[in-house]
Amino acid sequence: MIDIVILGTGAMTPLPERNLSAMLLRCEGRQILVDCGEGTQVAIREYGYGLKSIDGIAITHFHGDHFFGLPGLLQSLEHAGRTEPVWVAGPEGLDEMMERVLGMTGDLAFPVELRSEESFVSTNLLIETFPLSHRIPAQGYKFILERSGEFFPEKAREFGVAKDQWSRLQTGETVGNVTPQMVMGPKRKGISVVYATDTRPSRSIVEAARGVDLLIMDGTYPNEEKMAHAVKYGHMHFLEAAALAAEAGVKEAWLTHFSHSIEDPQEHMKAAQAIFPNIHSSFDGKKATLRFE
Amino acid sequence: MIDIVILGTGAMTPLPERNLSAMLLRCEGRQILVDCGEGTQVAIREYGYGLKSIDGIAITHFHGDHFFGLPGLLQSLEHAGRTEPVWVAGPEGLDEMMERVLGMTGDLAFPVELRSEESFVSTNLLIETFPLSHRIPAQGYKFILERSGEFFPEKAREFGVAKDQWSRLQTGETVGNVTPQMVMGPKRKGISVVYATDTRPSRSIVEAARGVDLLIMDGTYPNEEKMAHAVKYGHMHFLEAAALAAEAGVKEAWLTHFSHSIEDPQEHMKAAQAIFPNIHSSFDGKKATLRFE
Repeated sequence: MIDIVILGTGAMTPLPERNLSAMLLRCEGRQILVDCGEGTQVAIREYGYGLKSIDGIAITHFHGDHFFGLPGLLQSLEHAGRTEPVWVAGPEGLDEMMERVLGMTGDLAFPVELRSEESFVSTNLLIETFPLSHRIPAQGYKFILERSGEFFPEKAREFGVAKDQWSRLQTGETVGNVTPQMVMGPKRKGISVVYATDTRPSRSIVEAARGVDLLIMDGTYPNEEKMAHAVKYGHMHFLEAAALAAEAGVKEAWLTHFSHSIEDPQEHMKAAQAIFPNIHSSFDGKKATLRFE
Repeated sequence: MIDIVILGTGAMTPLPERNLSAMLLRCEGRQILVDCGEGTQVAIREYGYGLKSIDGIAITHFHGDHFFGLPGLLQSLEHAGRTEPVWVAGPEGLDEMMERVLGMTGDLAFPVELRSEESFVSTNLLIETFPLSHRIPAQGYKFILERSGEFFPEKAREFGVAKDQWSRLQTGETVGNVTPQMVMGPKRKGISVVYATDTRPSRSIVEAARGVDLLIMDGTYPNEEKMAHAVKYGHMHFLEAAALAAEAGVKEAWLTHFSHSIEDPQEHMKAAQAIFPNIHSSFDGKKATLRFE
């Protein structure tokens, strides 16, 4: 099971009524934060979550509205008694930007581990990064909760494995001569979520998002009337995003990162839903729980 | 006239219901910001003020809750079309901290001027700094709006100055052989405001605040029960602050920078007011307009 909460849907500057775009992802009691603009730590508290169980922070790119909240969040983790490591992932520039961030916080009571790999594991999730197409280096994130195959008790019994050893097989251990493969079916479909902002439409999004349960996307502008802005600033409008979602065949898509000029994104969804019916605008505090099929 | 708005009264970590301690001071349509924790730019908007007319930012010290909002505020100033210089004042460490801050924002469309002088002039105000007694270098600020002497029209007439030249005399110019001193009385009492947090009690506060119209002070803890904390973390409790206000003979004093453990500071004011009657707790959004006597 993965819980998602959209902490903010704003762009550029935090507003009293709209937090900057960020997402909190929970899995088995641990959390991963995606992006951390100014005020993101307040939004986490606002929606009833704590900071303590954050394992890491995935930064899409180093524009202020996506990372200026990092010094404060890291410091608040320290105030919350954190001593275990916290990872921070990000695109090109991660090392030097984190040097500035950590220069502002001073020494912390926990290690900060920088992650610039294309994929890594945290919080029981496989995390893959992929390039976005923005004005500066930017990357999207795919979070995958894998699901093992079905367990067949009758086979375990047949091979003479005691019942109290079954959980070892289920979690991938071999018991005596019995391997998990002997008592379990093939891997089943897991849960996957893709977060892709800020960006122009790109093939890498379609590839990363193919068939995912939830695709969260740059929806800075409502439609092609703002195409010149979208191109200039490296963003998408709702219809471009809907086309990507359709092409990737995702289960559901959400838009975020709304320009200040969009008062109510909901008003612009009809045209996008004509392209991909299961696309929705998100809002600060929007939640979803994704379960195994 | 000086307008004051308390943008926040919190300490350490921003909370949904309490912004971090900061103050906005307005004089003749221009603004000075004192401290800039995470979310201060949002608080400015929340209380109906704009960012455009901010001339400078006075930082008391480089603990996160007093300056982590700087990268975002400076960037938002740029988004608001700022091209004129903005000053940032602060204690020891200003240069290197601002290097990190400006490393995060990247190049801005306006110059940032660092002010480490003991006193300087901005926004028609004389600004004086004085040392605070905290765990790291910290300074308080005194803002003085001076008031020239009374203008005597009959004297100006007597010396034969034409009426359309009077304003030149009033603003300090000499007209012909007539000096301002010849047609004006002695300087009158102006308006002065002192901002002093984070700090232990100190003589420098009493000296800076002697007779001021408004003294805004560190009130992290309610009373002597938290004295060990106050000493350890370099803060004051309400009664210490009240004693300072009494000693300095200020007109009015406000407390700010409340510990998370104080839910309603108002509940603890009685004992402080027994020491200095005109001391009050402040709250996010508290305003005052100070006028010439």
